[in-house]
Amino acid sequence: MAAPQPSAPTPKPGRLAVIGLGPGSAELMAPAVRAELDRAQDIVGYTTYVEMAGPFRPDQRLLDSDNRQELDRARLAFELAAQGRHVVVVSSGDPGVFAMAAAVFEVLEHSQDPAWHAVELTILPGISAAQAAAARAGAPLGHDFCVISLSDNLKPWSIIAHRLRQAALADLVIALYNPRSRARPDQFAEALTVLREIRTPETPIVLGRDIGRPDESLTVTTLGEIQPEQVDMRTVVIVGSSLTRRLARQDGAEWVYTPRWYADD
Amino acid sequence: MAAPQPSAPTPKPGRLAVIGLGPGSAELMAPAVRAELDRAQDIVGYTTYVEMAGPFRPDQRLLDSDNRQELDRARLAFELAAQGRHVVVVSSGDPGVFAMAAAVFEVLEHSQDPAWHAVELTILPGISAAQAAAARAGAPLGHDFCVISLSDNLKPWSIIAHRLRQAALADLVIALYNPRSRARPDQFAEALTVLREIRTPETPIVLGRDIGRPDESLTVTTLGEIQPEQVDMRTVVIVGSSLTRRLARQDGAEWVYTPRWYADD
Repeated sequence: MAAPQPSAPTPKPGRLAVIGLGPGSAELMAPAVRAELDRAQDIVGYTTYVEMAGPFRPDQRLLDSDNRQELDRARLAFELAAQGRHVVVVSSGDPGVFAMAAAVFEVLEHSQDPAWHAVELTILPGISAAQAAAARAGAPLGHDFCVISLSDNLKPWSIIAHRLRQAALADLVIALYNPRSRARPDQFAEALTVLREIRTPETPIVLGRDIGRPDESLTVTTLGEIQPEQVDMRTVVIVGSSLTRRLARQDGAEWVYTPRWYADD
Repeated sequence: MAAPQPSAPTPKPGRLAVIGLGPGSAELMAPAVRAELDRAQDIVGYTTYVEMAGPFRPDQRLLDSDNRQELDRARLAFELAAQGRHVVVVSSGDPGVFAMAAAVFEVLEHSQDPAWHAVELTILPGISAAQAAAARAGAPLGHDFCVISLSDNLKPWSIIAHRLRQAALADLVIALYNPRSRARPDQFAEALTVLREIRTPETPIVLGRDIGRPDESLTVTTLGEIQPEQVDMRTVVIVGSSLTRRLARQDGAEWVYTPRWYADD
């Protein structure tokens, strides 16, 4: 039975993939992510990450911007996918760790548009900045750990300080994201004050900056010695537990690792 | 100037790469890991993971076993690499997260053999089981979270219970590894008791079993409803924070995500 041809056909829902590039090197990006980027018609994201994800073909549209308006970016992606486009939203690291995946779900939950809900939505994970820094340093995340963002753009500092204190009391290794920016120059120092009340000055600290990118740097220091100026918004800070150890390397550098055992108390 | 030929030349130190296969699918394994596996002469690891890493060429030696003797496996890897071999130690997920990297450093630190310390040692990260489960479920790790192993093989239960309590008080999302095994059938129930004292029955829980492998399964439930029998040693359990939300999918299933914001208190 031939249906009458509608004058304005409802577009077939498209696909929206929220992908993680990993730390930066193509050698650490999942093949599933590479394939999704290759098939995409529209690539949405922060300019730095869209550039990391390329090169792209002339038929692929780059919808990148320099601002931090994650929700606007997520809405744009749904609008395009609802029109039937194959859209990729780009994050560095893992999109599920302080990145675009949560913003995409926030926008979807608050949308009443059935076309947005009909989009084929998929999240493709990536190796996070904390994992990349940990691997370069040794195995500081080798035992129980937590991952906390120091940004108070979306949560009050009181919550952050409370979480740091509880995590330190639990003797978890602590990976800190967004530790310090020009807009928040003092909060990393406040975080150190909280940690120094509970952990010893000898506690090893790993600073991983742009690990997996050409200008990567890795620093091993201690809670007693670290200066806030050593850290910026592109640094991941890994603060050891009471068991985290430093081990000399033959090249003069050091490994940092957290053993799997825990002494009986 | 021609040097005399030594009768027993000291072997050139080899290479030991501790690699993460990711959750299981080749599509989520980093190209750097694939390249390392292709170049390896000796592949050391738990049989299940070595099989996941293949196929291998006839000239590659597989030194796999079914036991959980991680330290023996790490020692074997150093012995081979110290003889000049190119050795890969295989973990699933990320080798730095409850896997072989920490065991390798434990063994290295306690070795006095300069040949072991001369080995070129590298750690290559992978996408962890928690990240794979989170991506399939939505974005439950979208905000501050912790990763805790419930295995008390190497740490006392009192430490585990303390960490769970502190993490719940900090309102962190909690990813639990090794939640339940035949040798430890009751500890997951004990963990739930700790969490239920602090978190509400409506707290969303994601159970990811073998995510990224052919027989993967994903379950969304709550802290009030979950039964310990739903979980085994191949399950990753993600317990939401007070903000973690469930969102209906058009296919009848649900997304689970943790928003990036935190209400001011």
